[in-house]
Amino acid sequence: MSVYNLNLKRLVERPEKYFPRNEILSREDDGSIFRYTYKDYCARVRRLASAFETLGIAEGEKVATLSWNTHRHLEMYFGVPCAGRVLHTANLRLSDEHLIYTINHAEDVALFFSADLLAQVEAIAPHLTHVRAYVVMDRFAPASTTLAPLHVYEDLIAAGDPDYVFPEVDEHSPASMCFTSATTGNPKCVVYTHRGLYLHSQGLCNADTMAISEKDTLLPIAPMFHVNSWGVPFAGVWMGSRFVFPGQRPHAEDLLKLIEEQSVTFGFGAVTVGIDMMNALQRNPRNMRSLRGLLFGGSATPASVMKYFLEEHGVVLYTAWGSTECAPMATTVCIKRDQQHLDDDAKIAIRVRQGLPVPGVEVKVLDDEGHPIPWDDKAVGEVYVRGPWIATSYLNEPRSAESFIDGWWKSGDIAAVNEDGILRLVDRAKDLIKSGGEWISSVDLENTLMAHPAVREATVVGAPHEKWIERPVAFLVLDPESAPPSDQSLRAHLTEHGIAKWWLPDEFIALPALPKTGVGKFDKKKLRAEMDAFRREGTVAR
Amino acid sequence: MSVYNLNLKRLVERPEKYFPRNEILSREDDGSIFRYTYKDYCARVRRLASAFETLGIAEGEKVATLSWNTHRHLEMYFGVPCAGRVLHTANLRLSDEHLIYTINHAEDVALFFSADLLAQVEAIAPHLTHVRAYVVMDRFAPASTTLAPLHVYEDLIAAGDPDYVFPEVDEHSPASMCFTSATTGNPKCVVYTHRGLYLHSQGLCNADTMAISEKDTLLPIAPMFHVNSWGVPFAGVWMGSRFVFPGQRPHAEDLLKLIEEQSVTFGFGAVTVGIDMMNALQRNPRNMRSLRGLLFGGSATPASVMKYFLEEHGVVLYTAWGSTECAPMATTVCIKRDQQHLDDDAKIAIRVRQGLPVPGVEVKVLDDEGHPIPWDDKAVGEVYVRGPWIATSYLNEPRSAESFIDGWWKSGDIAAVNEDGILRLVDRAKDLIKSGGEWISSVDLENTLMAHPAVREATVVGAPHEKWIERPVAFLVLDPESAPPSDQSLRAHLTEHGIAKWWLPDEFIALPALPKTGVGKFDKKKLRAEMDAFRREGTVAR
Repeated sequence: MSVYNLNLKRLVERPEKYFPRNEILSREDDGSIFRYTYKDYCARVRRLASAFETLGIAEGEKVATLSWNTHRHLEMYFGVPCAGRVLHTANLRLSDEHLIYTINHAEDVALFFSADLLAQVEAIAPHLTHVRAYVVMDRFAPASTTLAPLHVYEDLIAAGDPDYVFPEVDEHSPASMCFTSATTGNPKCVVYTHRGLYLHSQGLCNADTMAISEKDTLLPIAPMFHVNSWGVPFAGVWMGSRFVFPGQRPHAEDLLKLIEEQSVTFGFGAVTVGIDMMNALQRNPRNMRSLRGLLFGGSATPASVMKYFLEEHGVVLYTAWGSTECAPMATTVCIKRDQQHLDDDAKIAIRVRQGLPVPGVEVKVLDDEGHPIPWDDKAVGEVYVRGPWIATSYLNEPRSAESFIDGWWKSGDIAAVNEDGILRLVDRAKDLIKSGGEWISSVDLENTLMAHPAVREATVVGAPHEKWIERPVAFLVLDPESAPPSDQSLRAHLTEHGIAKWWLPDEFIALPALPKTGVGKFDKKKLRAEMDAFRREGTVAR
Repeated sequence: MSVYNLNLKRLVERPEKYFPRNEILSREDDGSIFRYTYKDYCARVRRLASAFETLGIAEGEKVATLSWNTHRHLEMYFGVPCAGRVLHTANLRLSDEHLIYTINHAEDVALFFSADLLAQVEAIAPHLTHVRAYVVMDRFAPASTTLAPLHVYEDLIAAGDPDYVFPEVDEHSPASMCFTSATTGNPKCVVYTHRGLYLHSQGLCNADTMAISEKDTLLPIAPMFHVNSWGVPFAGVWMGSRFVFPGQRPHAEDLLKLIEEQSVTFGFGAVTVGIDMMNALQRNPRNMRSLRGLLFGGSATPASVMKYFLEEHGVVLYTAWGSTECAPMATTVCIKRDQQHLDDDAKIAIRVRQGLPVPGVEVKVLDDEGHPIPWDDKAVGEVYVRGPWIATSYLNEPRSAESFIDGWWKSGDIAAVNEDGILRLVDRAKDLIKSGGEWISSVDLENTLMAHPAVREATVVGAPHEKWIERPVAFLVLDPESAPPSDQSLRAHLTEHGIAKWWLPDEFIALPALPKTGVGKFDKKKLRAEMDAFRREGTVAR
């Protein structure tokens, strides 16, 4: 039996052949726009793929990137795996200690990095156990550096072979790797196979999920070091979509400018960035009419944010849920055919939920005894996921046994399911607040707080309590243009929106900014660990 | 390494869980509409799947259907392969001789048939070498029959287990089989694996191809015994789409009524049926506003038909190209992003072509020396196809070696490619007309003739000629409400539309109807073989 391999060269060869005129844009460090066509892009991917032989990197060896969302990073996305090497998109927001751990654990033999990250790379280089080559992703070498041997990306491309023939990679071979942060201890490594990324891409192009299309102009806001920028670069290149990469350290204002000036149709990134975009738009209105949608993930999108984008800009917000283990797409919003007639508010009430499994993915929600929970939107349980692109283990990791059971990934997320089968995340198992033997969902409190006009961001964690074991404490970022709300008004707001009395936070603490993780989520681990320090720093609402 | 199998139970379990309220409709023999929900449908699929054990049919054994497009046939589509048995959708339009051959060659051990086909089944039954059981797809057994043992479908369903657990079928296992007509000799058998049908379904749901969606109401016009009704039943069930099955022997008028009354969004079938639908609409206008598109295939759709549907009904016609070997989708229409601004005529000029490969499929067009032809829309060559759902052999068939070369299917179709990479079929290799050492494309002549207001259908074949080897002869069905055109006016029409003088047919012969194959294509084989008889039957235009 001859099997036709589902590998990544199938993806990149399609726009090369059929959409050579379509463009890829990238915001440069000076704010100008670099642009080239798929014809140029694909020739450079082949040149890059041919360079690994020159660099002495064998098939199957691991190549790390430390970089932003740029066209060069997109070249690495295909150039590395299509050459039979394995891409590790290292996370530049990790601590040096964790970054060193991940690069060593992955056994990366080369490190490609953005020029502006030179100091960070020089700092970790002495501790990297397998790296034999450094490549600065630029036109020129830095004036001086301690890194050796150091190659220049554009020199490799110039010397590369534009007619390089990609090897026929077995579909079960690893294509790329990404680390997920652990609650305790070191990050854990997820390996994506060619087949997994191929099928995940099909999932993203499905008309009932993200419907990624050649007609799209895609703005990848999610970092390319965070679950492959949600897999959209793979799907988008396959379809020949137009791309606009936001480059180095983009701010909300930069993203909005790109949407307006480049007629972006679909953007995707963390909810926290979405909230920043909303705030920036309120200060400085822009034309968002080219957008067919924005996908926010990482945590639940508050209804107030959905309402703002829909009412003020006619932009529908998509939601999705997943993780590094899910490549990342596991579920996505679905307004069913018999719900199409509902009004905007009712649709938003569906859209704030985590949705239905992407076709191909299976989801089950189990109670503590391992039984499926009833679909009554009240009972809660832990979410388990399996499917053709869902991980079934971590790389070289004894902790795999805790997270993968009979081919299912045990997510650690707690959810309810309504009668339509639509998931509603209640909390991370570890973020649930245990008060007097009952559970309080921090997510519900946060979403309701963020709907308050004077609140920009909110996160709620459990503070130790003598009598109740834990009690909720809310940390807020307030809108500087509104009068600071009293704790009484915040409580009244929560009560009006259906929050039970005993769920009301004991304290509301305003901070200049909330701590965030390397992937832009609110960092509750840090808030819990350093709660007293944050309390001292903040202003308590009275 | 644990591999998550891509098999068909993944597809049917999705609407069962998440879209139980969506409906499947089927036109009954008396014209009334049968309807039930996916909840009922999926329970019946499980009951059916459990019945094979009862019938003494082992896993891996083949089960034939001889049936129309109905809800029961859709139950067989999943009930058979999800039980680990293999579905053979036998073609009820074949001659008895060929039908017997296909059922014996497939080694079918059971035959499920529509009640109205009893006489046909009784006629072939004595010649079936492996069939151990007959099942009439109805509520009751016929009053008398020579078939034995004969079971009643609804009895099997009633006795079946609605909680039957589908086995975990390996993705490379056969799921279904279909025979393709051969130019000479017996039909050849193509086997579809679970994996192939799974991936083909993904291809159909892709936003840039057919975008099959839960929001669709699908009208499968293409027979379910013809390449799995183009694979749409698999894709549509997966998404939970609403279905409207046209039932036994539907006429164009029946189809149009279903579209109007059931708000169909997407229908698909042979071009010849599409032309019938156009003619029926012209006689009896109906509201086609619910349609987002119609997909016609089997042969090229004339521009005049596209123009009619677009201008009179606002309906876009999709085109696609493929075959039994391609499951069947290989290419489909694509208006590229930089062609979106074109006017309707320019878009139709793109839409009449066969389009670009469906994501996942590879196409190459080679000249007689095996070199790729230039993309100049002039050079022609033979089309080769490969991909994850393209056959790589026929079942137990020495002729496989002629049609499959290095994993590519050699299609026998001759095409040109324009600078956008968009395929334009020129002819079947065997239908090209060789005149004086040069080739004449029958397809070009047919499409141009069908744009003549007095011509409904046209097919052109080569007639033997002493001097020129072959010369084109056109067979036509004329519009009964127009004055019959003279041969001079037909020639003038062709010349005005850019047809070269030496291409002009020597004769134009009007027939009451053109002969058609079992799948609704014009039967050129028959026209060539019995040309003198057709000449005598027809009226020669003077």
